[in-house]
Amino acid sequence: MSEERLQQQIEFVLEIDKLKSVLRQSYLLSGERRENSAEHCWHTAVMALVLAEHAREPVDALRAACMLLVHDIVEIDAGDTYCYDTEAAADKAERETAAADRIYGLLPADQVGELRKLWDEFEDAATREAKFARALDRLMPLLHNYHTQGRSWKEHGITSRQVLAHNAVVSEGSEVLWQFVQELVADAVEKGYLAE
Amino acid sequence: MSEERLQQQIEFVLEIDKLKSVLRQSYLLSGERRENSAEHCWHTAVMALVLAEHAREPVDALRAACMLLVHDIVEIDAGDTYCYDTEAAADKAERETAAADRIYGLLPADQVGELRKLWDEFEDAATREAKFARALDRLMPLLHNYHTQGRSWKEHGITSRQVLAHNAVVSEGSEVLWQFVQELVADAVEKGYLAE
Repeated sequence: MSEERLQQQIEFVLEIDKLKSVLRQSYLLSGERRENSAEHCWHTAVMALVLAEHAREPVDALRAACMLLVHDIVEIDAGDTYCYDTEAAADKAERETAAADRIYGLLPADQVGELRKLWDEFEDAATREAKFARALDRLMPLLHNYHTQGRSWKEHGITSRQVLAHNAVVSEGSEVLWQFVQELVADAVEKGYLAE
Repeated sequence: MSEERLQQQIEFVLEIDKLKSVLRQSYLLSGERRENSAEHCWHTAVMALVLAEHAREPVDALRAACMLLVHDIVEIDAGDTYCYDTEAAADKAERETAAADRIYGLLPADQVGELRKLWDEFEDAATREAKFARALDRLMPLLHNYHTQGRSWKEHGITSRQVLAHNAVVSEGSEVLWQFVQELVADAVEKGYLAE
């Protein structure tokens, strides 16, 4: 093992500390502050271990979890694109690919692909693990919103139609969780957390 | 699938949001604030994917990562026990076991063991994945300390002898990383980040 190889790996490990300073629109359930992207990656990864039985097709839960672990690392450069911001969505893929090139590029050459393939798989949304992981990535912000009385929805004037349209993709990963999302949204409207 | 089963799982998912408010002694590399335990779980889990090749014996990197994902969930009840606080260490295992009973106990009965076994395996430190995961759990705070000029070491008056004694366990998980730790500590002393 060369010294340089380990140094490159450590440099990557140090670099991703920055994800802890990328803020999302969601608030913690305690309401004390906005969530950051590192915490979000952690939370959704644990969800994969807990909710794997609800995937539409049987999944390797550990693989889905590890996909979620790395799914937002690109936000260190690309920032968190708010999911209802259609303008920012236009060049999101381009910004995130450039970020992946730089950040995963810190690793030793033969290792870049190995780790990045988890992110590519998540982005491609083709495997059952990726579809399930993407469902969880949508579900958690809904839970945060619902349990903070729609705080972030209200701040941005989001409607239930937008929420349902954006999160319909949950059904590709899990029929059970999509059913749950629809009930949650209907209940949020009824409670006044979300505009109709 | 019963409604109640999913509700129990969601309750667990909501409960662990609290880990984002458990503060550790380490500072982010940016120095802006102390790290929380959810971020720490995330960071060490990603490290498992990046550094797996340095494990003393070949490991299942995804499994080691998922062990690190959940390794500090008990701190929601038990708090983060500072690793150089010998007084708090006395009842740490007892406090953490009670916490595991309560928190994992939120899950459906048949699922408690399934998820908790990852934590038990980490705590038992018997498998090669657990030994490697434990090495990473020690390595990351050293990196945080070193790259913030020993900020947390200085605040608590820690010496290099304490650091080496506490982290000798790294060698059980990885010879390469233990060598790296020793060099890092020697360098920290030379630079004045750490008392001798």
